[in-house]
Parts: sequence; C-alpha cells; structure tokens
Amino acid sequence: MAFVANAPRKRPGKNNNHIRLIMTSGDIILLGHGSGGQMTHDLIDKIILPILQSGSAPTIQEDAALINIPQGKTFFTTDSYVVDPFIFPGGDIGDLAVNGTINDLAMQGAMPVALSLGLILEEGLLIEDFKVVLRSISKAAKDAKAPIVCGDTKVVPRGRGDKIFINTSGVGVAAGTTEISGANAKAGDKVLLSGTIGDHGIAIMSQREGLEFDTVIESDTAALHLMVAGLIGANVEIHSMRDPTRGGLATTMVELAQSSRISIRLDERSIPISGAVAGACEILGLDPMHIANEGKMIAIIKSEDAIRALEIIARHPRGKDAAIIGEVTGGPPGKVTMTSLVGGSRIINKMPGELLPRIC
Amino acid sequence: MAFVANAPRKRPGKNNNHIRLIMTSGDIILLGHGSGGQMTHDLIDKIILPILQSGSAPTIQEDAALINIPQGKTFFTTDSYVVDPFIFPGGDIGDLAVNGTINDLAMQGAMPVALSLGLILEEGLLIEDFKVVLRSISKAAKDAKAPIVCGDTKVVPRGRGDKIFINTSGVGVAAGTTEISGANAKAGDKVLLSGTIGDHGIAIMSQREGLEFDTVIESDTAALHLMVAGLIGANVEIHSMRDPTRGGLATTMVELAQSSRISIRLDERSIPISGAVAGACEILGLDPMHIANEGKMIAIIKSEDAIRALEIIARHPRGKDAAIIGEVTGGPPGKVTMTSLVGGSRIINKMPGELLPRIC
Repeated sequence: MAFVANAPRKRPGKNNNHIRLIMTSGDIILLGHGSGGQMTHDLIDKIILPILQSGSAPTIQEDAALINIPQGKTFFTTDSYVVDPFIFPGGDIGDLAVNGTINDLAMQGAMPVALSLGLILEEGLLIEDFKVVLRSISKAAKDAKAPIVCGDTKVVPRGRGDKIFINTSGVGVAAGTTEISGANAKAGDKVLLSGTIGDHGIAIMSQREGLEFDTVIESDTAALHLMVAGLIGANVEIHSMRDPTRGGLATTMVELAQSSRISIRLDERSIPISGAVAGACEILGLDPMHIANEGKMIAIIKSEDAIRALEIIARHPRGKDAAIIGEVTGGPPGKVTMTSLVGGSRIINKMPGELLPRIC
Repeated sequence: MAFVANAPRKRPGKNNNHIRLIMTSGDIILLGHGSGGQMTHDLIDKIILPILQSGSAPTIQEDAALINIPQGKTFFTTDSYVVDPFIFPGGDIGDLAVNGTINDLAMQGAMPVALSLGLILEEGLLIEDFKVVLRSISKAAKDAKAPIVCGDTKVVPRGRGDKIFINTSGVGVAAGTTEISGANAKAGDKVLLSGTIGDHGIAIMSQREGLEFDTVIESDTAALHLMVAGLIGANVEIHSMRDPTRGGLATTMVELAQSSRISIRLDERSIPISGAVAGACEILGLDPMHIANEGKMIAIIKSEDAIRALEIIARHPRGKDAAIIGEVTGGPPGKVTMTSLVGGSRIINKMPGELLPRIC
C-alpha cells in the first residue's frame, strides 16, 4: 500500500479498535510494519505522516497523489540512497535523499514540484532513529518548498537490508527556456564550481572509519535549485550543469567532456578545497578530485556571462567559495587535463571502480 | 549518477579506452558497479540501457529526463519492491515493479506517462539474473506503453541487501474527468472484483517454502490500466478503485469502508478463487482474503452501471473471472461483513501484522 500525503482529510471513522500506539521509546521496526495491514497503517498514521506534515494526520490514503504541474518543460528523476552510516556529521540519509533529487532536477534548470518517498527499512531499526531521518526529510522538503506527495514503506528481515534505504523521485518544471544539457558545453565556455570539493565523502569516511581530525568535517548536503534559479533569472547563458556526487569532480568533468565532445582544461590552483579536507586526503592517500560532493555544482557558462554568474552563485549561502576553475577547449572529445599546483599538466580520468562504497 | 533513457543520442566519442566488457557469463555485480565511476557507466551502457531500449545505447546521460505530460489531471506514485524470491512462477521482481506502479496510477483513473527505475543491487548478484529482471522490466514497460525514462543504480555489500530491490515511481494522467477516490464509495454501489484472489501470495509462498501442489500456482502480476480505460471510455460511473495487494482483499475492503465512511457487505460465494489456491489455503491454514494479489482490482461502481462494467472488465484478458462480490451499505463507517458459503455472516478485518513477509 502506498501512502499519499496530500489526500483530502476527513475525520477518522469510529472503527479504530485495532489502532495500537507504537511510539514508546526503544521500539523497533518489525516485519509487520511492512505487511500492508494494520501495523503498516499505524506506522504511516502515527509516525510517518505526523512528522512529514508537522502534526496533521490524514486518514484517507490513495494509491497515487494528484499533483499540479505548472506550465513549462517538465522533468522526472529518481535516486536511491544507501549511505552508511545513515546519520553523519552535517546530515543524514533523509536530507541527503531530498536534496539529491532536488539537485538532479536543478541541474536541468528545473524547480521541484513534487517528490516521492520510498522507504526500505530493516527489521530492528530503532523507531527513534527512523524519526530522526523523517524529521530531516520533512525539514529539507519544507526548506526547499518541495512537497513530498506520495510514499511507500517496505520492511525486510534482519540481515537482508541495512537499517534504512530511501528512494526519492521528483517531478520538476524548468525555470527558463534555455536548453541545459551535458551535451551543450562549447569551446570557450568557462567552468564554474560552486564551492569546496570533497566535504561529503570525507565526512562519511571519517564517521565510518572512526577517524578524527582537528576540525570536524561535515557533509555539504544542500539543495541548489535557488542558486540555479538565480542564474536563470539573470539570463545567464548556462550550457551544462552537473552536481559532482559519486565519482567526484573528476568523473563529472570527464562525463561532460565526453557528452559534449569537447576538451576541458582545469586549473588546480583555482579549485576550492578546505584545509581540513585537503589534509585528510593527504593523510589517507586519496585524490579529492574523486571524492563525492552533495551540495556543489559545476556550471559551464558562456564566457561573457562567467563573471556575472560567479557573482550570483557567490551570493547564495552555499556559494561563498565559488570559483571559475577552468575552461572548455576545442581539443579531443572527452579529454580533461589539469594544470597542477606546481605548473605541470595531468590527464583527469573518471574514477575507475569503487573508492568508498555507499557514499550516498 | 542517474541515467536517463530518452536523452538525445550522439555517436560515442573516441575516448573509450576505459570501457571494459563485463558481460561474460558467471560475472557478478561488484561494489564498483555502484561507484558512480567508470564501472557504473559500463553497467549502464553495456547491460541496462541496451536491454531497456532493445539494442540502442545512448551515450549522453542527464540528471533528469524531459517528459511530455498530456493535458489532464496528473498523478504521481511510488512503490518499492523487495519480493523474495525475486524470480517466481508467473513473473519476477521486474514486471511486478512495472505493473504495480502502473496499477497505482490506474486505480486513480490515470494512464502511465513515464516511469522511473531505482535499482539497489547486492554485491554478488549474478549478471545473468540481473538481465532476466531487466528483460522483464523492458517487456512489461513496452507492453503497457509506459516508458522508463530515468533510473539509478546503487550497490550494497554482501549481506547488506538481498540480491535486488527495485523502486518504480510513475507519472500518469487521468483518462477521464470523474473523481475516483477511496473516499467516494456510496451506499447502494456495487463492489466488483476483476478476477480470482490469492494467486500472487500463494505463488510466492509455494516457491519460497518449496511447496508443491498438483497445479503450479502462478502470480497474477499484470497491468490493469487498459481495463480501467475501458470503463472510463464507456462512461461507467466509477466511485472508488483499489488493487488488493499486500493485506489482500480483506484489508483493501476495510480501507475503502473506512475512507468512504460506509459499510460493505460481501458475499463469499461470489468471490472468485481458483481450486488450486483454495486448496493451498486450506492445507496451509490461510485465509485467502488476506493473501496478496498483483493483477486484480476492486471497482466500486454506481449500481445502475454495475452489469455494464462487469461486461467491460470481463472482455479484458485478465478479467474473465470478474464478478460482483458485494455492495456498499449505509451501516457503521468502516464495517465490512461477509456472508459465508454456509449462510452465516462474519466481520472482515484488516490483516493485523505480517502474514508473509516480502510478498512484493
């Protein structure tokens, strides 16, 4: 059974004799919570919907939610989240899932209209931990004005999942009319990055491995659609956008260079990175170019508009470290090079395999 | 990284030196296939997209898919699938996921416009088994004319998932203008059921527990949107529809009675059930009213239109056993009773907890 968060509300009927309270502390998710029967209803009515809707609990559940899509080019996207640990410095799997799907829409120039929430819970998950994630989902969705309109809950037995996996899908509508595509980068364009790299990946790795650094490194999870709306509203000519998540900045740059059949030259000195992340990468022997980000974007912008775009991005709370980090050139399709700190040049490749499993 | 199935296609660039073939038999899913790096790209380009698109492999991947939504009331739904075993008589997790989400849209009177596909794979899944599921997804989506436009792949380590979990979300548009809602059933309406009950649940249970019956019981997984379109096209006055999946017919009937604040009286003699399923339920001590279905629907129809609706449903390949199984009455909200085979009457309740975990 699916639940729908915006269904019409009525007073509950009187036939509530089966309703059990399941909210005492120490309670855990049981297989029965995924049965589709009374326990599933209780979980949805007593835990999930009250948190997602800040207190109100509708009793009518439909199989699909009615949504109102404004005029304009419409986009659809999906992402599943399996991050381990599911609560980490700077966020948890809940805001990660909401922000990630909003960003997938934003990278096409679209603003979120409606999100879905698919939960796969492992038997034994603490209800208290589940509530932490739900509150985080609720806050992220409200902050971004991206309503969660439908959902689904499944439970798998102990050892057949890992606490909580989340799928968020999203429908969005383009804020402008420009065609933004990974295939549209052109020779001469400038490459903008909205902030420091590597924060999310190093935050997860530190938490998982119990590493301690002088500074706590926090995930950068954030929704970027308003940053994008700022660029579109100012008529900046955006050719391509991407959020460099799994695979890091390196993988994203090679993808864009391949899709647009152009070369890209980056300048390592201009790529923002915090001292803490740079230090952690050095200690751990990791290349920050391959570390995941969850609240950063790459924008490939027509050269004439690049400075103006940089100023707009820098005014956003998440854009203060934004920089122009390179440019598109007319070389061999898919080739990405980087001028290093000491002046040499090296080829940038996609991350080949798995650097850090379950980063998002 | 998300993939998008309908992105513009270009000739691949020449920078393919990292592409590795990963299709030899006996190959398994590795953690690296979920990295977001080169191995993820290979999995998408060499395995997933060729099967979903029957041979063509686009090389441009966007973060969200452009979709074209026709005029009309738009619906959005999501469902995750964790069925165990993931291949079973009559289907697998692939067609189950596609059909299930199409049906969630259909139960609101909507036809599918676009589906998303979120895959959570366990390290060690055989690529051959993965392909079986992908082919099944592809066939179900094509048969239903419900294109899969975007997707995402994650991999979790061995023992942190269970082979394959799938989320399908869907966008659909209403075929008519009637408001169909779980809250709209009215006293006097007739309750129609499109076919036999219990087939899916018993098929899964038999397979999982290694039970053998004289007849192989197959899952009824099927898309029902064209059955619904037939009713809407004939101006049948539909008040409510539901597919009685997890929790079975009993849970669905109580949900509808609660949402619409009416009573429902069912007649056990008119509820279609195959001899094989009835026999299996008797042997196993199960109530077929609580067993899941995946290709059946309940339609609550204005009394005057009920016979006509029955004839329309019966003309659909999946509707030959359709029957009028009861009626809506003006009694206490949420009360469902059933006149039994021997003439007595019993109260029908939602399934309380878990009868059979991971049925879908």
